[in-house]
Amino acid sequence: MNHPAINVQVKRGGITESAHQIKAIIVNSSGETLHSWGDMEPLVYPRSAIKALQALAFLERGGAQKYDFTEQEIAILGASHNGEQRHTETVQKMLAKLWHTPKDFECGHHWPMFVEAGYELAGKGETPNNLHNNCSGKHAGMLGLAKLLNVDSKGYIQVEHDVQQTIADTMGQMCEIDFSTLPHSPDGCSAPTWAMPLFNLALGFAKFADPSNLSAERQKACRTMFNAVVNNPFMVAGTKRYCTEMMEALGQRVFLKVGAEGVYIAAIPDLKLAIALKCEDGATRGAESVMTALLHKVGATDHVDRGQLERFDRVSIKNWNQIETGEIICPM
Amino acid sequence: MNHPAINVQVKRGGITESAHQIKAIIVNSSGETLHSWGDMEPLVYPRSAIKALQALAFLERGGAQKYDFTEQEIAILGASHNGEQRHTETVQKMLAKLWHTPKDFECGHHWPMFVEAGYELAGKGETPNNLHNNCSGKHAGMLGLAKLLNVDSKGYIQVEHDVQQTIADTMGQMCEIDFSTLPHSPDGCSAPTWAMPLFNLALGFAKFADPSNLSAERQKACRTMFNAVVNNPFMVAGTKRYCTEMMEALGQRVFLKVGAEGVYIAAIPDLKLAIALKCEDGATRGAESVMTALLHKVGATDHVDRGQLERFDRVSIKNWNQIETGEIICPM
Repeated sequence: MNHPAINVQVKRGGITESAHQIKAIIVNSSGETLHSWGDMEPLVYPRSAIKALQALAFLERGGAQKYDFTEQEIAILGASHNGEQRHTETVQKMLAKLWHTPKDFECGHHWPMFVEAGYELAGKGETPNNLHNNCSGKHAGMLGLAKLLNVDSKGYIQVEHDVQQTIADTMGQMCEIDFSTLPHSPDGCSAPTWAMPLFNLALGFAKFADPSNLSAERQKACRTMFNAVVNNPFMVAGTKRYCTEMMEALGQRVFLKVGAEGVYIAAIPDLKLAIALKCEDGATRGAESVMTALLHKVGATDHVDRGQLERFDRVSIKNWNQIETGEIICPM
Repeated sequence: MNHPAINVQVKRGGITESAHQIKAIIVNSSGETLHSWGDMEPLVYPRSAIKALQALAFLERGGAQKYDFTEQEIAILGASHNGEQRHTETVQKMLAKLWHTPKDFECGHHWPMFVEAGYELAGKGETPNNLHNNCSGKHAGMLGLAKLLNVDSKGYIQVEHDVQQTIADTMGQMCEIDFSTLPHSPDGCSAPTWAMPLFNLALGFAKFADPSNLSAERQKACRTMFNAVVNNPFMVAGTKRYCTEMMEALGQRVFLKVGAEGVYIAAIPDLKLAIALKCEDGATRGAESVMTALLHKVGATDHVDRGQLERFDRVSIKNWNQIETGEIICPM
């Protein structure tokens, strides 16, 4: 059934200082909507939340075996990583295996998403390169896919390039929607992102969680990706990140991925379902708060001692002196 | 008259990706509400937007003359500065004039708000100290006020300390509300922030813009503060900041100040009025977009060639490759 959008409150000194409206949907691998909150009609750009599905085109063509990728390297294919040293070293090794260099990346560069990693870099007198781009793992997969497709990688970020068209076909099959009909835009890393109903995004990840009705190659690709990420949660995000910390807390049972502008997805094989949500104003803090509540709601946290999840359940806001000034409250 | 809250759209690839609801009010120095948008009843924490009024208690007691503060130093009393070298050097000089050291600050420290200044600091092998706290100028004023009141500065950030009570009395007179009745909380810098109706915040700044009915000392303090800031817009914010860049564009006619969680105020002496607004979800991008629109609406930009304000009117979103991926649109 459809409920109103979820209203997350940011409290300070006993009153509400700010608030976030979040829409969310829970879909199982048969394509049934179990619950939804908010207006499901407007299209949502999944942004980085969909990276695991983008990686399938490379994996189901045997890319990981062909290029001898480790499980950590497979995990980072689907990452929005912090640009910490372990991340950049991992991507560097993948590029070497693909006979590429960071210059072949068309993602642009930025200072590490984890700002402390930036200070560390600056402290060594260094500046960021394409490896530090939070999407560099995804782009390694795209360069790998170009090799598997036997096409020139140049221009691989363009929507009409074989790499992107192949990825769009795969995602279209997973999400059961024709990507050629969807609005699209360059993402932060210049590769395209396509907007779709939140239902279709959730459906894609429900089938990722329970791929039993997919082709043998795709089943294997989904399971390979799932296992790689839940076994290596640091690789998809990093220090102090919700994706990493919540996956660690839940012990290999749940796949989580953030997207820019307040998008989040969870894929839960035990329950054969997925959660997709979007904070309407784009705030990650609102999205995380609702994700925690929905993980509880569907039973994805039942196997964990609730005390271990306290820091997710009660998100305290602290100031520069570490005095608690408020908290973020999800009314579920 | 009251209008619905203002809905700012964040566009990507032709569709709305995120949206912000902003409430706003325009009040003149006679206390008349000229326009308002959204629900005016819930209280709003002004956060750093109110710093200029916090500085009045120091200024109207002759603090600037007594401690020989320059106009730049007066401006930084009301700043949320970037922690760039010019900012920290300025506050350092103020402390020396007050016979204090950064250790006397009770604000805590953080890496510079302008992240590039942090990389520069790290590149020199340095780490931030209390001078880099974006509120360090305000705290210099609070230490100065303790001296003027002839009280021990220790504990000056506590709400019951004479420094804070004196500041609250002054703000209460400006905003015409009894601060002892208002909810309060430690702010990011641990000094208190009090929540009030947006009307009272706007009223306080309308009287700041047109202090003609205030005591001679307070009139002078308001004009000193206004002139210091509009003559030194870099000091209250810094590189790439809306406060600084918009004040520079408007040429000493408008005082602007951001507060955390999407608050903004403008004080406009020529028009004897002020604007106060709050983005309900706390997003600064939403607040800035509406501030630009309201500055146009009240006529505060009429003296400027509109082409010079284009970057404020049409806020382009660019990715790491500097490709435009979207824009922020205020429907006014």
